[in-house]
Amino acid sequence: MTPEEFRTYGRLAVDWIADYLERIESYPVLSQVSPGEVRAQLPARPPERGEPFEAVLADLEKVVLPGITHWQHPSFFAYFPSNASGPAILADLLSAGLGVQGMLWATSPACTELEQHVLDWLAELLDLPAAFRSDGPGGGVIQDTASSSILLALLAALHRATGGAARHEGVRGAGGPEGQGDRDREGYAVYASTQVHSALVKASIIAGLGAPAVREIPVDPTTLAMDVAGLREAIEADQRAGIIPVMAVATVGTTSTSAIDPVGEIGEVCREHGIWLHVDAAYAGVAAVCPELRWINDGVGYADSYCTNPHKWLLTNFDCDAFYVADRAPLIGALSILPEYLRNAATESGAVVDYRDWQVPLGRRFRALKLWAVIRWYGTEGLREHIRGHVAAAQEFAEWVRAHPRFEIAAPHPLSLVCFRLRGGEEADEANAALMERLNASGELYLTHTKVNDRVTLRLAIGTTLTERRHVEAAWRRIQEAAAALAG
Amino acid sequence: MTPEEFRTYGRLAVDWIADYLERIESYPVLSQVSPGEVRAQLPARPPERGEPFEAVLADLEKVVLPGITHWQHPSFFAYFPSNASGPAILADLLSAGLGVQGMLWATSPACTELEQHVLDWLAELLDLPAAFRSDGPGGGVIQDTASSSILLALLAALHRATGGAARHEGVRGAGGPEGQGDRDREGYAVYASTQVHSALVKASIIAGLGAPAVREIPVDPTTLAMDVAGLREAIEADQRAGIIPVMAVATVGTTSTSAIDPVGEIGEVCREHGIWLHVDAAYAGVAAVCPELRWINDGVGYADSYCTNPHKWLLTNFDCDAFYVADRAPLIGALSILPEYLRNAATESGAVVDYRDWQVPLGRRFRALKLWAVIRWYGTEGLREHIRGHVAAAQEFAEWVRAHPRFEIAAPHPLSLVCFRLRGGEEADEANAALMERLNASGELYLTHTKVNDRVTLRLAIGTTLTERRHVEAAWRRIQEAAAALAG
Repeated sequence: MTPEEFRTYGRLAVDWIADYLERIESYPVLSQVSPGEVRAQLPARPPERGEPFEAVLADLEKVVLPGITHWQHPSFFAYFPSNASGPAILADLLSAGLGVQGMLWATSPACTELEQHVLDWLAELLDLPAAFRSDGPGGGVIQDTASSSILLALLAALHRATGGAARHEGVRGAGGPEGQGDRDREGYAVYASTQVHSALVKASIIAGLGAPAVREIPVDPTTLAMDVAGLREAIEADQRAGIIPVMAVATVGTTSTSAIDPVGEIGEVCREHGIWLHVDAAYAGVAAVCPELRWINDGVGYADSYCTNPHKWLLTNFDCDAFYVADRAPLIGALSILPEYLRNAATESGAVVDYRDWQVPLGRRFRALKLWAVIRWYGTEGLREHIRGHVAAAQEFAEWVRAHPRFEIAAPHPLSLVCFRLRGGEEADEANAALMERLNASGELYLTHTKVNDRVTLRLAIGTTLTERRHVEAAWRRIQEAAAALAG
Repeated sequence: MTPEEFRTYGRLAVDWIADYLERIESYPVLSQVSPGEVRAQLPARPPERGEPFEAVLADLEKVVLPGITHWQHPSFFAYFPSNASGPAILADLLSAGLGVQGMLWATSPACTELEQHVLDWLAELLDLPAAFRSDGPGGGVIQDTASSSILLALLAALHRATGGAARHEGVRGAGGPEGQGDRDREGYAVYASTQVHSALVKASIIAGLGAPAVREIPVDPTTLAMDVAGLREAIEADQRAGIIPVMAVATVGTTSTSAIDPVGEIGEVCREHGIWLHVDAAYAGVAAVCPELRWINDGVGYADSYCTNPHKWLLTNFDCDAFYVADRAPLIGALSILPEYLRNAATESGAVVDYRDWQVPLGRRFRALKLWAVIRWYGTEGLREHIRGHVAAAQEFAEWVRAHPRFEIAAPHPLSLVCFRLRGGEEADEANAALMERLNASGELYLTHTKVNDRVTLRLAIGTTLTERRHVEAAWRRIQEAAAALAG
């Protein structure tokens, strides 16, 4: 493609996106296609000769769009949001145009230095502990997702707990506390509440410990926050059995209900027993950009590692998970590999950071550009406004639910996620599931479910870039209408 | 950012990229900044108020560009290429604009189905085994890098070798063959040549086996391809010691010299012993788009898993590693996790693929769009032309080197990488290192080094989107001039 063609098609692509975002409310939020429907419209074989770019754009419209669940639709209330924004999209475009690969400082110094710098900015914006800044032994790095951050935290924790032996000897999982998958009574164990993200069990499997090495600590049935006495008991029982506690995960804003674990108390236990503390604030952490929400950082000073996702709720396109460590040595110690073909003077000088040792893959894109553009375009004020609007709308929605005779709030809602349901015991599960299906099939909004104390519960997660109060208001109207229709 | 602002700044960004690519030859290929130089120009604190997008573009020019090592420069001959192209950049832009997250089929069916479809197209383009197509028990998926593919292959192999027990019991590495890091004589071992990518040792550490579980098999000193007799011996010695061989990696195009392991013979040994065969064709695999280069697929029919990177040498922006399995069951078996909040009707129907179970992270971008756009824009013919031009230029370069009295070829060069050096024994190492430093410091071209049979060797890797014969010719002229200047 010549530069002239690139200019022409680039304009078409930019306009296509602008048009798409202008008409996005005209689409059903949840794609209505059946399995195989998209593929059935695609030619079975790749083309022999090149096709014009217009053909790609035409098929994007005709074949792809009906198969899209519109995450940027302002009435997308499912899962957690995955924010896109103009400055992030365009900075990511610039990154693609530069086409650099920042595995080493030397392979594009700006790619590494801007990332360090912008993650320091973010630490300041969120008022995170000074230990996470790049000017000491710690520092931040962009990962694809919080799942990768949990895995990396576990690898660093194992490295530290074994005095570096893990990379030479491998590791051994503790087996289940009740004997499932048990081989013997030793090995490493990991602790988190029953509400922890599934990424922790996945990380434990990937790291070779196996799923039962994750000890699920009970939660308070009302707050759904970890019971710290239970944590202490589990750790001590394991220690008596010769098992080595290696890491605890405290979640700030669980995926199911946005519950907030008591990070400080968990941190005390971890410190006492020499256990790595990872704080998973994937969704909620960015809310600390607002001073009035900084309480979500309580206890984060105990953390050995921490992550939050600007790609969820801070206007930065996926993927952008900000992962911080208070000491980078165990992370690099766990992952560093230096084959001859990557040796270079800058690395050997020790004066630079090579991010390849901070992640699973070797190669990496220039993702800092988009976070840089977002922070600069919106400024601290704009970022706060984005978060505040959604928190306010969620609190208002919760009031409406609370005031309605047929609905109830199912869990605390400190931020922008509200868990609610039709009142009733077990028999209401079916009605709640039917309500969700009816709403999602309407295409007017999209929300997902969870279980809270074993009852089917709907989740309204507010946070897309385009969501305003009026969309939440319309959602509540539709929810009431659908509930009334279902009731007869 | 309003849609109108997005149109305006989008045009600026598109034009910036077109301008950049038009003037790219005016920049030194290797960035000339010192550590800290980029950061020193950035404000210490994030802005309170938003800034215009023009400010980002201005700093991109002034602060970022000097810190860029230009991977898209036609005289970038370092590492392996990391191709960018117009259709890939623009399709990635469209992906960012859609802003969907394809962790589940349901969260955007087109994101999953287009990926399945385009990976089937790629399998056809490269004439890969039918087992890798999505219409049987196998299938393809886009990963970030070949490092992740090696890790996933190992996890699937461990799952299969343990009959699924790995996820419950964890795993145990075999320890070193010569006793280093040895705890006992059991556990799992992995096999690859001494030339395998460092990602294998990293994967072995991540998966909890430890580095010594990787048995490095000697290579033929001329071809640098794995010695299959050595592989057989290592496997049998381990088996006698009660160790379980779990996976072998055959490399098609090693990072150091593009050596080609005898995949078929390795496959025979694997089949005989029930060992998982992963074929790492990260750089070289895409060359099979040319029928005359299809010999690089010899033996791939034995592979349980395979990867090649369109983001290296097939015009598709990073990240795009195509990972294929002949049977998806052990991969999904190793990684599948289904918390309540991800349950949905489509998943439960069994009629769809949920790619979250095919990778380490949970979330995923719509990366298939860029590969789709590349295949459609260039067509089979255009992709072949891209590969052929570079292979021809490399062969010509090798002839020039061979004909020169002071230089020699250091390894076979079947594709687009040529390993060469100033003649001489150990005493020439310093001269070769000095030659490389001089060339890279000139900014005129960028190449990297390796060691071949313990001698410092320069690598000229041809393959950027813009590289033409004339750039290779100019490189050779500069190499001769620099060598002459150093000698005299």
